[in-house]
Amino acid sequence: MSAEEEKVEITEESWESLKGLIAEEKKRRVLEFFESLAPGEVARAISRLEETDRNKLFKVLGPEDAAEILQELPEEQAADVIEDLPEEQAADIVGEFDSDDQADILGAMEEGEAEGILQKMNPDEADEARQLLSFDPNTAGGLMMREFLSFPADWKVSDILSDLEKNSETYSHYEVLYGYIIDKESKKLLGIIRFRDLLLSPKSRPVIDIMISEAVLAKTSTSLEALEDIFDRYDFFAVPVTDDQGRMLGLVRRSDVREALEDRADQTFLQASGILGGEEFRTMPLRSRSVRRLSILTVNIGLNIISASVIAAYQHTLSEVIALAVFLPIISDLSGCSGNQAIAVSIRELALGLLKPHEFLHVFWKEVNVGVINGIALGVVLGVVAVLWKGNMYLGAVVAAALALNTVLSVVIGGSIPLLLKKFDLDPAIASSPILTTITDICGFFFVLSFATALLHYLV
Amino acid sequence: MSAEEEKVEITEESWESLKGLIAEEKKRRVLEFFESLAPGEVARAISRLEETDRNKLFKVLGPEDAAEILQELPEEQAADVIEDLPEEQAADIVGEFDSDDQADILGAMEEGEAEGILQKMNPDEADEARQLLSFDPNTAGGLMMREFLSFPADWKVSDILSDLEKNSETYSHYEVLYGYIIDKESKKLLGIIRFRDLLLSPKSRPVIDIMISEAVLAKTSTSLEALEDIFDRYDFFAVPVTDDQGRMLGLVRRSDVREALEDRADQTFLQASGILGGEEFRTMPLRSRSVRRLSILTVNIGLNIISASVIAAYQHTLSEVIALAVFLPIISDLSGCSGNQAIAVSIRELALGLLKPHEFLHVFWKEVNVGVINGIALGVVLGVVAVLWKGNMYLGAVVAAALALNTVLSVVIGGSIPLLLKKFDLDPAIASSPILTTITDICGFFFVLSFATALLHYLV
Repeated sequence: MSAEEEKVEITEESWESLKGLIAEEKKRRVLEFFESLAPGEVARAISRLEETDRNKLFKVLGPEDAAEILQELPEEQAADVIEDLPEEQAADIVGEFDSDDQADILGAMEEGEAEGILQKMNPDEADEARQLLSFDPNTAGGLMMREFLSFPADWKVSDILSDLEKNSETYSHYEVLYGYIIDKESKKLLGIIRFRDLLLSPKSRPVIDIMISEAVLAKTSTSLEALEDIFDRYDFFAVPVTDDQGRMLGLVRRSDVREALEDRADQTFLQASGILGGEEFRTMPLRSRSVRRLSILTVNIGLNIISASVIAAYQHTLSEVIALAVFLPIISDLSGCSGNQAIAVSIRELALGLLKPHEFLHVFWKEVNVGVINGIALGVVLGVVAVLWKGNMYLGAVVAAALALNTVLSVVIGGSIPLLLKKFDLDPAIASSPILTTITDICGFFFVLSFATALLHYLV
Repeated sequence: MSAEEEKVEITEESWESLKGLIAEEKKRRVLEFFESLAPGEVARAISRLEETDRNKLFKVLGPEDAAEILQELPEEQAADVIEDLPEEQAADIVGEFDSDDQADILGAMEEGEAEGILQKMNPDEADEARQLLSFDPNTAGGLMMREFLSFPADWKVSDILSDLEKNSETYSHYEVLYGYIIDKESKKLLGIIRFRDLLLSPKSRPVIDIMISEAVLAKTSTSLEALEDIFDRYDFFAVPVTDDQGRMLGLVRRSDVREALEDRADQTFLQASGILGGEEFRTMPLRSRSVRRLSILTVNIGLNIISASVIAAYQHTLSEVIALAVFLPIISDLSGCSGNQAIAVSIRELALGLLKPHEFLHVFWKEVNVGVINGIALGVVLGVVAVLWKGNMYLGAVVAAALALNTVLSVVIGGSIPLLLKKFDLDPAIASSPILTTITDICGFFFVLSFATALLHYLV
């Protein structure tokens, strides 16, 4: 089957028929329906069902099939859907996930909800999930899966081969690429066997002869960035994760790291756009969507009032030269835009490790250059517009100078704020833009209005 | 070695010593220097060297080591660095990249530069790269690598095993996980052999008995989203890419898809922040950085002048109630912020396939709900501030009503613009925000000033 051929988009008709199948509890036909859809459509179908239909659907499907379908949804969305289910049913479904996915999905829920589900889960699995949950999700501990194939150090190639053959059914759930050789006594990781090396070695050879003993390891605390660097540098599919004593706890796969980086980039975009927590799907409850957006907006309204108070202080000048009121929002918006460009470049370079939080001077010089060029260009344009409109050279000079100066300031401050926030371990994506626009609004309004006040008798 | 232990950050001292080693052309010690660095630091070191030092460095290293080090840089940055090299040297280095990386790096260059390098490359490799370059980078054709292991359909398990053993040196450069069974005559892909199945099967078995013949395939035109869906649904490491006749051209790996998605998310963030093309590193030439930013700013200044002309039309009202000038930038900024939140959620949901470009009604209702709640909340706050400041209830009512109304409008328009742009095959990340803020500024200014004009004798 080709990915192209099977593409079926949901239509209004098929929509109704799905609801019908769920109501009639026809499990097999529901599954067939989902299989007939283009893969992305499954997520869309689930996310658009009413809560009651959705809960019914998962009951009809049973935990195993429900888990499989839920794993096609973005994590946060799957977590939301599962939170709406009765705890027993939720626990059964979460129990069917891989260990790393269990922790991810529970980590995306409200703490109380997650704990309720954990208490209904198989106690061993719940303990394991709790342990994974205790790690920062953007470290090797938080990203690792606990299923891996380990073999004793005294085995031969033939021992592993027959073990693989015997357990091929079980192992098919693992992603079998490497085997890990563990010391029986100390439980320490001694080395890694690549499965292709098993193919190419005499059967009687001890595994410790063909294992890679100088393996690259991660610790539970190894950061996402460090893992990215490892996978950039080496062609591995997975890296073992050990505790401080060198005992293997799990493994992190290349694709897990890529996925986490992608999620982070998505979150950065949403956070920088004013969505608290960097997550919103329109299927989320109205209250949660409104609160996430409103909490940023409320801060913004306060900051806006502070910066607008500069205008209030110059009411006399404004009433003399009412044309200035036209230029204030323009200067505010353009300076914000220039500064946000610099913020975005800094956030990106910090995330890629190309910029360190202490490198203010580097950013300063790189931004001053761009700021001077762009500031002059924008200032001249706005100045000419002012002169053409009011026929007053001085008005042109005031707005041109204010915009040019404020542009330089904006890019320098915009480039630096993410570094400063990062230095204090704050997330640059959330706070950079509100801080920037407050400062540049204050300065921009001050420049225009104070220059105008100084030249007032040339302007009226 | 652990990822933690080897971390060495570049200091001013080691910086100078690197420059010294390059000047003295000490290849081995330069390589040792890079190996001693934490992986991410290599990219930072390269990107901060002066152009002359960098060119000298690659000369000293030779193409193979230079290619290895350049592959640690983000693609666009590596492309910039290679563009600065003499074409001969650049061609030698690019020749050392994997086929998919060759196309990526050449695709990230200016067309003329890429063609110059292609002409100095080995003609076969250049042809292959040109072919890959002809595909859209966000399709299976653009993402695929052309190196894969294929075997004839009449082989037995033992034939493959001995072939693997014989060529283990060559194959170690491939990522050996699957073998592809190709029909000798038609060159069509018949099936896929998983290497672990080779381990578990009798040596005398024909490979066509153990191959997976109902394999999931991609075509060169299969989109990034469709590939993501395939890898979400199935546990594959790679998917074969065929032409329309079913002949295998290459394979796309799971991690290539993840990387492309991550790059897209990064680009979306930068584009939405006003960086044209979604790429800027501070190591890029000043001219290119300034132009990329200025081209967005120039459009913005034009749009800002249009929306500010609404204010100009109400100069009389403004001169009567100068306090209104204080509220105009506040309403502009808050409406822009509300609208950008809705834009970001739509762009994200479109990228994930959770939202289709025709689903305006769905977005409309979801946004109206949030808009009404947030609009009332923000309107009340700003209205109260106005009353407290000026002691005039009517002024409070004017700004509250204008902000509330404009917030509803902003979220509805913000949520819908990305769908509209996507419908016309435009990139929502670039144009959504400037279009939104122009509309919401015009409407916001109009609401405040026209309400104020209507109630003018209560306000003065």
